[in-house]
Amino acid sequence: MPLSLEQLNAASAAEAVALLDGIYEHSPWVAERAMGERPFRSLAHLKHALVAALARSSVEEQLGLIRAHPELAGKAMVSKTLTSESTNEQSKAGLTACTPEEFARLQQLNADYNAKFGFPFILAVRGARGQGLSKQQIIETFARRLEGQPNVEREECLRNINRIAEIRLNDKFGIEPVRGNEVWDWHEDLARHSDPGFAEKGQLTVTYLTEAHLACARQIAQGMKDVGFDEVLIDAVGNVVGRYHGAKPEAKYLLTGSHYDTVRNGGKYDGRLGVFVPMACVRELHRAGRRLPFGIEVVAFSEEEGQRYKATFLASGALVGQFDNAWLEQKDTDGITMREAMRQAGLKPEDIPALERDPQRYLGFVEVHIEQGPVLHELQLPLGVVSSINGSVRFLGELVGVACHAGTTPMDRRHDAVCGLAELALYMEQRARQDGDSVATIGQLNVPAGSINVVPGRCSFSMDLRAPTNAQRDALMADVLAELDRICQRRGLGLKLEETMRASAAPSAPEWQARWEQAVQALGLPVHRMPSGAGHDAMKLHERMPQAMLFVRGQNAGISHNPLEATTNDDIELAVQAFSHLLQHLAA
Amino acid sequence: MPLSLEQLNAASAAEAVALLDGIYEHSPWVAERAMGERPFRSLAHLKHALVAALARSSVEEQLGLIRAHPELAGKAMVSKTLTSESTNEQSKAGLTACTPEEFARLQQLNADYNAKFGFPFILAVRGARGQGLSKQQIIETFARRLEGQPNVEREECLRNINRIAEIRLNDKFGIEPVRGNEVWDWHEDLARHSDPGFAEKGQLTVTYLTEAHLACARQIAQGMKDVGFDEVLIDAVGNVVGRYHGAKPEAKYLLTGSHYDTVRNGGKYDGRLGVFVPMACVRELHRAGRRLPFGIEVVAFSEEEGQRYKATFLASGALVGQFDNAWLEQKDTDGITMREAMRQAGLKPEDIPALERDPQRYLGFVEVHIEQGPVLHELQLPLGVVSSINGSVRFLGELVGVACHAGTTPMDRRHDAVCGLAELALYMEQRARQDGDSVATIGQLNVPAGSINVVPGRCSFSMDLRAPTNAQRDALMADVLAELDRICQRRGLGLKLEETMRASAAPSAPEWQARWEQAVQALGLPVHRMPSGAGHDAMKLHERMPQAMLFVRGQNAGISHNPLEATTNDDIELAVQAFSHLLQHLAA
Repeated sequence: MPLSLEQLNAASAAEAVALLDGIYEHSPWVAERAMGERPFRSLAHLKHALVAALARSSVEEQLGLIRAHPELAGKAMVSKTLTSESTNEQSKAGLTACTPEEFARLQQLNADYNAKFGFPFILAVRGARGQGLSKQQIIETFARRLEGQPNVEREECLRNINRIAEIRLNDKFGIEPVRGNEVWDWHEDLARHSDPGFAEKGQLTVTYLTEAHLACARQIAQGMKDVGFDEVLIDAVGNVVGRYHGAKPEAKYLLTGSHYDTVRNGGKYDGRLGVFVPMACVRELHRAGRRLPFGIEVVAFSEEEGQRYKATFLASGALVGQFDNAWLEQKDTDGITMREAMRQAGLKPEDIPALERDPQRYLGFVEVHIEQGPVLHELQLPLGVVSSINGSVRFLGELVGVACHAGTTPMDRRHDAVCGLAELALYMEQRARQDGDSVATIGQLNVPAGSINVVPGRCSFSMDLRAPTNAQRDALMADVLAELDRICQRRGLGLKLEETMRASAAPSAPEWQARWEQAVQALGLPVHRMPSGAGHDAMKLHERMPQAMLFVRGQNAGISHNPLEATTNDDIELAVQAFSHLLQHLAA
Repeated sequence: MPLSLEQLNAASAAEAVALLDGIYEHSPWVAERAMGERPFRSLAHLKHALVAALARSSVEEQLGLIRAHPELAGKAMVSKTLTSESTNEQSKAGLTACTPEEFARLQQLNADYNAKFGFPFILAVRGARGQGLSKQQIIETFARRLEGQPNVEREECLRNINRIAEIRLNDKFGIEPVRGNEVWDWHEDLARHSDPGFAEKGQLTVTYLTEAHLACARQIAQGMKDVGFDEVLIDAVGNVVGRYHGAKPEAKYLLTGSHYDTVRNGGKYDGRLGVFVPMACVRELHRAGRRLPFGIEVVAFSEEEGQRYKATFLASGALVGQFDNAWLEQKDTDGITMREAMRQAGLKPEDIPALERDPQRYLGFVEVHIEQGPVLHELQLPLGVVSSINGSVRFLGELVGVACHAGTTPMDRRHDAVCGLAELALYMEQRARQDGDSVATIGQLNVPAGSINVVPGRCSFSMDLRAPTNAQRDALMADVLAELDRICQRRGLGLKLEETMRASAAPSAPEWQARWEQAVQALGLPVHRMPSGAGHDAMKLHERMPQAMLFVRGQNAGISHNPLEATTNDDIELAVQAFSHLLQHLAA
């Protein structure tokens, strides 16, 4: 008999702790400390209360909990050391069918991991979908995490313990994240399509108007039809547009969506989550035969990443009348112009101007997106509400000193380009920190033709500066450039600097941000407001209508533009619930 | 009638200043301030006194002197603005035969230079040999210096003014640096030989046992015969050995020499100066029919740079019994083993052990070498006495952080490999500075596959640490490694580090260092003691016999391993005089 929240809320504290026995391995104290949060308004609320209680505990207590877990075992050693829960979980992960080599590898990894960190490796072996990781996935994750730093790895163990607890709670409450599972599977299914050269390596790459890209568009269009959209079309720039009509023909539309193209060797969720989450909501409405006072227009944008052509946001740009016809003559690396690629795809460039949306016909734009950053992952929150898409500015530069012999040139006679760069890097770090929510990064760095025994005469670098408002970004930029100038003066260095990009900040429309906040609260979760450091299609729509975004937690420290990008069925389920709540609230 | 030092020393101060009229353009104050140094013991002493007076003057006075010079002129504007001295110098440099394009280019360079620095471009157009630079050389130098920093460039103008003064003084005193000119020409002549692939580009590259290398050996051997060595041979590793016998058959030998191989696209003086300077001295002795109480053995070492094979110092190593036979099986990039290369060159590896010298047969080892650093150039001293060849240690390393999105990862959640490297670079700089005579360098630096919008997860780098004693080097290394460890701990970074080289310090033998100091003093020059940051053949001989080195100033901030490596006829003349003095002193 599954447990219910009513039961748990009605029980005495001691009884409630007993009801949650086994959720945290041999550690009833976690549940004890969460009891102050009762009554739990939702399973998500209960999960979060437990996570928060664990986060508040001391490092010693946390290590005790980690050490209460058995080592990740292969088949040969299962029987004695594992609890029945752990055995069940590890067998779901297929670890009972280890070859001798796999078993030996796991033994070695366990030994190395313990020797390095002093605690056992903890992995939620049932994985992001809850169905179990493959042996290969487990071993790869193990090897990767063995490279980590102790503090980071301890926290990763705790996050995995919380994920194990989440799955155990689902089981105990008899709850399956059904929509989360389906939407998760839609991502897997769409990821079958990948560009030549990447598909063969099992990598996901879908760039503008390739075969794989067109296959994605067709599959999304079919998916939209299947879930009950009234109109589905592929427009003149390759966007897949689905409309679910409102109750009345003259009803305005809520515009939503995100992109389905990817970077090279990218992740499965970047962009696509913002297409599939509203599709899941439309399916619910369609199944219920329900119409809202407004229509829902979901756009799967064909291009956001600027990979094949340097025309980032061309797809959402087309909706705000910013498609630049000069882009049509741009060539990809094979010499194929965008115009030619469009023609081959059956798209008509002459129809692009008609894609511009009339803001009067829309309530606004919302976008769901995987965070692509570590914040929600570290805070252990499934959802975050975006307060602003940060403004940014980028530079490419080169410091020019004097190359000279590393052995013969005294320290006080050097004009060392790397030392100048070092001062810049540390200044940028502390200056961005000072703002709290600015970021500053030197992502590219090179001493061209550097030699071990030559004081570097040149050092090329990039700078990427971002802040939630244009004013804050500009102040950051002014300070960094002034410091760079001082460094060059003081060190006798020359400077070449080129601004390569500048994008305005897009603060969320307050009333739309508030709708997301209400939706998150309604799920029993705390509201976390955060800027978006990355650019999104919402930046473009921002120019014509109010917009606000919802972020979904990414696994693996929120890594993105990387095959390790991931999110769980439970987090997706919450995103679908939040989107549904926003629709209900808007309809009310 | 040339001026004489006796005249100058005997004159009243006012008369003496008048005698030096025109040496410093419209600026008799330079000579006035040097008068306190009278009596001048040598022309070198007078030159140095003037240089020192100018160095002591204020920046305003220095700028006044610079601005007293006319712009570097092309033919069309010669007549009105130039003093007769300047006209003479510029015409020697061939600037009177400018094409309209060259004239326009010079005009543009003058305008750009004045706009940037606020003073005219000063170049000693008669150059390092005193014969005049070509138009192409002048224009290239002009363009290069236009890239410089104001303070550095002001000092470079003053150095050129001093070089102009030096040449004017030579003219006024009717003195030609005859031996300096000849030795300078020997370098030019030897530089005709260069390896395939470089020779075509006008670049100098002479690597072990190539055709060019063998041609160099033959040319040096012929040169030794021509100047009067008694025995000349090419030994089993390709060293060219010349012996000038002492007065008696049983006399010990003074060993000296340096290498004749080069790095790729290297300079003409690195190594070769230490062969040609003693050859010039032997010629003097031979012409005078003079025998010393000791013999002179000059070795032109065949290999020091480790370019074709990784067997640096194999040539001087052979003289101290350190030729490693395993090197014979090493292959070059074309797959040719050293053994095969030796065979083709007619060398017999089986004879190598016999090359080991018996220290009882030698007084010691001295080596003349171009400084390969900026110290003498900045101090404006032609010669320096080496106190020690620094001990060194080298590392290749990689900092491993976490690559993540530069927009979405808050500053306090980063493990940025570049910021860690930046802390390391600045620590190394200040820690080496603290010693005064240690040096520490990050010469190679790269973020592999870095992206402008990704926080760098990896940063590879090199470290090169050097100090005059092993103990000082080891203390420096220990502090740098400890700091690197602290940085990694604090920032949660991983570290890969490999020690790739460690060489012991070779302090000069005090009595031999003192002999060089006496020789420099005897020329009327101040003694400047300095460590050698670079490794030299003397390091090898150090293991068997007392050694000390003399450094000769390099032009162009002492750049080496570069086609811009240069030294003047006057400085070479002084080196020959110093070496002769050492011989005389040793014979006395």
